[in-house]
Amino acid sequence: MARFPFSAIVGQDEMKRALLIAAVEPAIGGVMVFGDRGTGKSTAARALAALMPPIPVTEGCRYHCRPEERGTCPDPCTSGRTRKMAVPFVDLPLGATEDRVVGALDLERALRSGEKAFEPGLLAKAHRGFLYIDEINLLEDHLVDLLLDVAASGENLVEREGLSVRHRARFVLIGSGNPEEGELRPQLLDRFGLSVEVRTPGNIDDRVEIMRRCAAQEADPDAFAESWQDEDQKVLRQIARGQKKLPSMSVPDEVLIDAANLCQAVKADGMRGELTLMRASRALAALDGAKTVQRKHLLEVAPMALRHRLRRDVLDETGSSARIERAIEELFG
Amino acid sequence: MARFPFSAIVGQDEMKRALLIAAVEPAIGGVMVFGDRGTGKSTAARALAALMPPIPVTEGCRYHCRPEERGTCPDPCTSGRTRKMAVPFVDLPLGATEDRVVGALDLERALRSGEKAFEPGLLAKAHRGFLYIDEINLLEDHLVDLLLDVAASGENLVEREGLSVRHRARFVLIGSGNPEEGELRPQLLDRFGLSVEVRTPGNIDDRVEIMRRCAAQEADPDAFAESWQDEDQKVLRQIARGQKKLPSMSVPDEVLIDAANLCQAVKADGMRGELTLMRASRALAALDGAKTVQRKHLLEVAPMALRHRLRRDVLDETGSSARIERAIEELFG
Amino acid sequence: MARFPFSAIVGQDEMKRALLIAAVEPAIGGVMVFGDRGTGKSTAARALAALMPPIPVTEGCRYHCRPEERGTCPDPCTSGRTRKMAVPFVDLPLGATEDRVVGALDLERALRSGEKAFEPGLLAKAHRGFLYIDEINLLEDHLVDLLLDVAASGENLVEREGLSVRHRARFVLIGSGNPEEGELRPQLLDRFGLSVEVRTPGNIDDRVEIMRRCAAQEADPDAFAESWQDEDQKVLRQIARGQKKLPSMSVPDEVLIDAANLCQAVKADGMRGELTLMRASRALAALDGAKTVQRKHLLEVAPMALRHRLRRDVLDETGSSARIERAIEELFG
Amino acid sequence: MARFPFSAIVGQDEMKRALLIAAVEPAIGGVMVFGDRGTGKSTAARALAALMPPIPVTEGCRYHCRPEERGTCPDPCTSGRTRKMAVPFVDLPLGATEDRVVGALDLERALRSGEKAFEPGLLAKAHRGFLYIDEINLLEDHLVDLLLDVAASGENLVEREGLSVRHRARFVLIGSGNPEEGELRPQLLDRFGLSVEVRTPGNIDDRVEIMRRCAAQEADPDAFAESWQDEDQKVLRQIARGQKKLPSMSVPDEVLIDAANLCQAVKADGMRGELTLMRASRALAALDGAKTVQRKHLLEVAPMALRHRLRRDVLDETGSSARIERAIEELFG
Amino acid sequence: MARFPFSAIVGQDEMKRALLIAAVEPAIGGVMVFGDRGTGKSTAARALAALMPPIPVTEGCRYHCRPEERGTCPDPCTSGRTRKMAVPFVDLPLGATEDRVVGALDLERALRSGEKAFEPGLLAKAHRGFLYIDEINLLEDHLVDLLLDVAASGENLVEREGLSVRHRARFVLIGSGNPEEGELRPQLLDRFGLSVEVRTPGNIDDRVEIMRRCAAQEADPDAFAESWQDEDQKVLRQIARGQKKLPSMSVPDEVLIDAANLCQAVKADGMRGELTLMRASRALAALDGAKTVQRKHLLEVAPMALRHRLRRDVLDETGSSARIERAIEELFG
Amino acid sequence: MARFPFSAIVGQDEMKRALLIAAVEPAIGGVMVFGDRGTGKSTAARALAALMPPIPVTEGCRYHCRPEERGTCPDPCTSGRTRKMAVPFVDLPLGATEDRVVGALDLERALRSGEKAFEPGLLAKAHRGFLYIDEINLLEDHLVDLLLDVAASGENLVEREGLSVRHRARFVLIGSGNPEEGELRPQLLDRFGLSVEVRTPGNIDDRVEIMRRCAAQEADPDAFAESWQDEDQKVLRQIARGQKKLPSMSVPDEVLIDAANLCQAVKADGMRGELTLMRASRALAALDGAKTVQRKHLLEVAPMALRHRLRRDVLDETGSSARIERAIEELFG
Repeated sequence: MARFPFSAIVGQDEMKRALLIAAVEPAIGGVMVFGDRGTGKSTAARALAALMPPIPVTEGCRYHCRPEERGTCPDPCTSGRTRKMAVPFVDLPLGATEDRVVGALDLERALRSGEKAFEPGLLAKAHRGFLYIDEINLLEDHLVDLLLDVAASGENLVEREGLSVRHRARFVLIGSGNPEEGELRPQLLDRFGLSVEVRTPGNIDDRVEIMRRCAAQEADPDAFAESWQDEDQKVLRQIARGQKKLPSMSVPDEVLIDAANLCQAVKADGMRGELTLMRASRALAALDGAKTVQRKHLLEVAPMALRHRLRRDVLDETGSSARIERAIEELFG
Repeated sequence: MARFPFSAIVGQDEMKRALLIAAVEPAIGGVMVFGDRGTGKSTAARALAALMPPIPVTEGCRYHCRPEERGTCPDPCTSGRTRKMAVPFVDLPLGATEDRVVGALDLERALRSGEKAFEPGLLAKAHRGFLYIDEINLLEDHLVDLLLDVAASGENLVEREGLSVRHRARFVLIGSGNPEEGELRPQLLDRFGLSVEVRTPGNIDDRVEIMRRCAAQEADPDAFAESWQDEDQKVLRQIARGQKKLPSMSVPDEVLIDAANLCQAVKADGMRGELTLMRASRALAALDGAKTVQRKHLLEVAPMALRHRLRRDVLDETGSSARIERAIEELFG
Repeated sequence: MARFPFSAIVGQDEMKRALLIAAVEPAIGGVMVFGDRGTGKSTAARALAALMPPIPVTEGCRYHCRPEERGTCPDPCTSGRTRKMAVPFVDLPLGATEDRVVGALDLERALRSGEKAFEPGLLAKAHRGFLYIDEINLLEDHLVDLLLDVAASGENLVEREGLSVRHRARFVLIGSGNPEEGELRPQLLDRFGLSVEVRTPGNIDDRVEIMRRCAAQEADPDAFAESWQDEDQKVLRQIARGQKKLPSMSVPDEVLIDAANLCQAVKADGMRGELTLMRASRALAALDGAKTVQRKHLLEVAPMALRHRLRRDVLDETGSSARIERAIEELFG
Repeated sequence: MARFPFSAIVGQDEMKRALLIAAVEPAIGGVMVFGDRGTGKSTAARALAALMPPIPVTEGCRYHCRPEERGTCPDPCTSGRTRKMAVPFVDLPLGATEDRVVGALDLERALRSGEKAFEPGLLAKAHRGFLYIDEINLLEDHLVDLLLDVAASGENLVEREGLSVRHRARFVLIGSGNPEEGELRPQLLDRFGLSVEVRTPGNIDDRVEIMRRCAAQEADPDAFAESWQDEDQKVLRQIARGQKKLPSMSVPDEVLIDAANLCQAVKADGMRGELTLMRASRALAALDGAKTVQRKHLLEVAPMALRHRLRRDVLDETGSSARIERAIEELFG
Repeated sequence: MARFPFSAIVGQDEMKRALLIAAVEPAIGGVMVFGDRGTGKSTAARALAALMPPIPVTEGCRYHCRPEERGTCPDPCTSGRTRKMAVPFVDLPLGATEDRVVGALDLERALRSGEKAFEPGLLAKAHRGFLYIDEINLLEDHLVDLLLDVAASGENLVEREGLSVRHRARFVLIGSGNPEEGELRPQLLDRFGLSVEVRTPGNIDDRVEIMRRCAAQEADPDAFAESWQDEDQKVLRQIARGQKKLPSMSVPDEVLIDAANLCQAVKADGMRGELTLMRASRALAALDGAKTVQRKHLLEVAPMALRHRLRRDVLDETGSSARIERAIEELFG
Repeated sequence: MARFPFSAIVGQDEMKRALLIAAVEPAIGGVMVFGDRGTGKSTAARALAALMPPIPVTEGCRYHCRPEERGTCPDPCTSGRTRKMAVPFVDLPLGATEDRVVGALDLERALRSGEKAFEPGLLAKAHRGFLYIDEINLLEDHLVDLLLDVAASGENLVEREGLSVRHRARFVLIGSGNPEEGELRPQLLDRFGLSVEVRTPGNIDDRVEIMRRCAAQEADPDAFAESWQDEDQKVLRQIARGQKKLPSMSVPDEVLIDAANLCQAVKADGMRGELTLMRASRALAALDGAKTVQRKHLLEVAPMALRHRLRRDVLDETGSSARIERAIEELFG
């Protein structure tokens, strides 16, 4: 199935922004997407992956390392020849086992030739790309934990059955879930950097526009893709600029104080709220080509950085997003 | 057991129409059939498969690819000779494992000859035909998910135990369930394109006619089949016409606006409602030989496209079908 | 243990009649027997099997096909020599696995000689005989489903682990259950053709007679069997006559209308009620040597054909059998 | 541990009588023992086994068949030499698997030598002896069912994994359970022939006597055994006489009528109550050396034959034993 | 970690006495220790094992049989050379499998060399020593049952997978549990000979003394052990005297009557109460060097012999120990 | 990811003190850390490990024994060459199996070469370092039990499948848990030596300082590490001094009496409270370079030594820490 162009997606601005931040700053830790069924949660993620330029990899390397990182690859990928491949997008299947995710001993080969060979898993496939987990709340806790560990460290270390394999696994982790179908444990939710909410579009024009674009894409995918190419190129340039500017971007003290005040006001547990606010506003400023991080960047990322870190407040029935906006209003309004 | 002729089925018009739409437009995504036990839910589906003309396949190919698609088949089906086979109809057994559905490593052959051979599963068997799942609500969620994925993409990709096999798997997915025996999760239900309701016929004449036809078929299946051959040929010609007209059929904006208004009025979650309305009315117009898609096509497919996408409304006890009809009445009546 | 003669069974007329109908018309689909523990539910079934004359089979054939069907047997049973065997009676053990029921790959032979050999299961053993399932409500649903599928199609198709074996499996399926110990799901119950109720005999004379006959049989099984041989021969001739007359027996329209009216009056779901009424009254007329099917045949089989297809009616506490009799009284009385 | 002599057991008359009846008439079907913990339920059963004279078996035969039954044994026990062995007493371990009970393929031998060898299980070990199941209510239902089937038929038929082994397995089945710890399903309980109740002795003299005998036995097991040898011999002669007289013993009609009246009065489900009454009173008369079966024999075995076959009566809180005694009083008193 | 000397344990007199009785009279059947966490339940048991003199065993024997019992050992321990080993103390790990406890087929050796070798389990390791089970209430019932069987019979018989190994396994079984964390089923509890209760010491002096001794032991384990050697030797001599006197010690009738009266007064189920009272008072008299068993011995062991055999009395909230003491007071006070 | 310097951690003084005590006195038994998510529970533990100087190990030894302990190592590490490695920090993965933790038979090697090779587990990896268990309440009880056993004895003994391997495993065990997500059983909690509580910092300055330090570390990890090197060296010297002074440090009787009085006042079960107070105050005095252990040392460690050993008091809703402080106030205030 031909992918839908990223810029042809109608609406869903918060989700698109979160994906761009994660693409620029991998330390952000993953994006959790909440929303109704059928709102195209995975479409935007797939579209972003399809938009990225192909990546150079060493030929014959099962881990598609960057050619310059070849030395640390578990495969003896000595060919030296380089090929290009599309940025990987891995959709974790419901019911995937730990072996399939992290990789496992190739038992058949071990029995036949007495050789301990490692069969890379989905984490290896996702390296330098995206790992999408639909309905992450249905995944077993220890797998979510493991995925978050690897997403945070950028490295998959498999040590068992006498194997000891370590390979790079840097990817943007994207989880999706419908809050009506049960939630992740707060412990796991907190480890996602950002969270966004996606809703069915509320006005008729958007709805008709979506149908029109889908019909056009189904009728002639190639022509449709071409008509959106310019817009997609702009997005691509924005990402490149952000990646370039990020290292030199720092957050001034007054914005840090804003962040601390905001976290205290909404009673976010732990320090991950502040730290994510700091990292996300820095990445957003870089994407925007700003000279320095400002309060406006902080406020723009606040809902996606804090929404999933608030305790249920029995006395305050207001939703998380509304509580964050109220706190912003009271502190900075 | 000899199959019952499609046109000899008494009543069940909505189900028959949904099956024809799915046969013409595979992008519709699958048909869910709700209904009492013993109403012949599977009879119509089997009859439609039996009606279709035999398909040409390459000899010795385990995936029964179209001869012209031979190049992309995982089997080295080089014979070049072509044979005809009946359109496959696969009835997924209750309790089928994932291995049996998607295919698996042929372990015995691997151990004996050290060769990693893939044993195709039921998805391969269903290619170019029908996959019927009785009481789909009893199937494990991750299997339903997987079946819907393959039905949507037309492709089965198996990657594990060092195997990586990709083969075509295009089929009409038909699920059946009795709403009294528990439901599919809304997340999964929403991914079915259409849903229809089948009931025990309410008048004596129909009931007697059904018995008469069954008795006639049991007494002499061949003679019975022959007596319905002309009617079945008409259906076959209708499908052929629909398949031919579909690519050039488009949905005018006023019908798209109707679709958006209707979805908003019944509060369908997500965008799948609109998109299915668009696709199904397009296919129906093609089947009918119409010049363009009109509101009447939209209204005819609306119940089957939206019925399973409505939220339970605590304050409105009316059933889904009634709510859709009421909305149609208010908007277009 | 020597079997008890069929005609020496005291009472239980409805069950005996249902078994004879199933022996004459296999399309009836199976007999479900409800009743208290210790009422000899399995005794009658075993007795009927023991009464039937031995069947001719090809020597060395593991599927005991009819010699004239040898060509379609998965075994290369080329000997051509024929032997006689008793009509099989298979008692499905509680806790039987699917492999044991349908047959499975003979793993040991596969590993040793690299040959994929099929080990036939209990379905093969039951071919041309009876398959009895005590306390069927304790069996897993997917097994019951599978047994009903095979009973309906007369064929067992095993496709997995690279095996594809298809063999005939025609048998009379008999399930028994105690309604106090939990029920089958209505979906499964509905697929049984007939259902009968067996009760502890209510009068002293019958009870003493049963003890007398058991004592006589335990004391000298051979003499006891001989004393009932004439009665058993009469039953055997009745079955033979029924099998011969059935193909030419048809149900007149007025009886079909009676069937439809009766089903509507008792609100049986689906069409299986009418179709079973039609088939069972036809078989009963054939057993009775009647010239044509009459209302009296319909009324005689109505309780066993409809009893298990009635919905629980919250407002009508009357049992199923009573509701059927009341409807008969109102319609035809 | 040296066994306790059967006749040295203080009290427990009903249990001892039931065991003797089962030893004389194996068709009785098994004895269920209810009672408090620590009342020596297994002691009496072990003692009876130890009392019986050694049995002659063919040397090297794993099924310890009677030498004269050698021909039907699955082992090729051709030695012709005979040895004596103690009557087996098998104590089924809690958590025993079905394989361990019925026997299984000797997998290791199969893999090593390609030979399908059967490893006999506990049923083979119990042949010609006793099979004791402590806390039978903790055993899985399908195992209890299987044990009762084998106990009733005297034969173990194992058919799976390509094996088909049939061997004799005639034993007295004894189950024990504490009614406070959950019960067997009525369906299974009903299949036990007899049930007895064992209680902690209620008077001081009996209690002191038990301690005295235990102390004596612990101090010098051999001397203790010798001191009870004469009593044990009497029991042995009584069993021998019963076994000899049983075949010619019949139950007169008036006693059968008594049995039917009694079963109807206590509302025992099914026919197993009457049939067990008939068999047990016949065996008791044989043990007693009576000329014919009389009402007194019937009344003596009535509690143990009927107690476990009574439905709970919500309106009558009286225990089963009391209800049986009251019915006896009303009918025959 | 160096063991703590038995005589350096502060308080816990009842537990120490129970352990000495079990060491002298293995027929007592095991000791159950109830008590709060951290009260050193296992310390006393380990200390007693460490105190015992090393035992002579045949070199190379995996079952550490007594040299004079060599003939009955499953190992062909023919060396004839003898070595000394410490009295074994086995601490059963939580989650131990049945295979690990009873021993199992050495699968690897079987597959490699075709030899059926038995790998002894923890029961073999505990032979001639102690088997300690912490939190026995968390162990599966069938394992507790098995351990109690072996402890009672002194023998482990493993019969499965074609193995038949019988080896001696005489040990003092000690279970511990915290009554707040769920209890053993009464059926299993009753099979323990004795039960004791251990509590946190209630006075400051004892508490300080315990800390002082622990500090001294941690600072210089060897010096600490030496300072308690004389006391430990006294205990050792007491055990030796008890073992020597026990065979000739008998319980006079008046003490047996006391035992029966006491058991009846506290309503202990079954006969194990009386029999344990008899055995424990006999062992205690032997340990004390008394000439004959007296009522005082009976009264001293009564709480530990009966405490765990009392039914919960809904009308009498008093604890088990208090009820026993009250009965003693009323009967003998 | 570069580690965060130990001294750069803002706040969390109690946790840091507990870790230093555990590093100095391994007999303390492990540290349990309670606290909100995201409070950097694992950061401090990792930082302490990273701070410690590299340890010398024998080359090629899989157990990284101290070179001078080489003789007792299961590996034949005869090279004699020594290398340095970082102090190990093992993070136990959620869902780790027992085999992975304790080590297991290398099955592949066993099957291939017939050699029984031991594959060391995570316990071996943690030797001479730290073992961190996040969300320990989600670990199975028997694994926690096993980890605590090894942590207490400093030794891992694996005996099964014919293997018998014993290797040193001395590590500081650190468990973390969020009390809102369920607790450890009191039995297991009690076996942890110390417990500390970590909270989200409550003032803005600390929060901003944390962000500043994280930003600095993320921007240039090396420069950040260097700027904290002097502080980290001070900590290192303090640990070295404590380890040196500990053996000669003893606790005077008056402090022991204080400990006993305090434990009695807060009603701590068992003796572990007193013993931990004794050991922890001794270690703290050594770390502080004090001449003798004083009451102030006792009072400083009292909350972390007793907090997790208090029973819930239904009548006293005050938290554990508050109850300890109140008792200290009443006794010594």
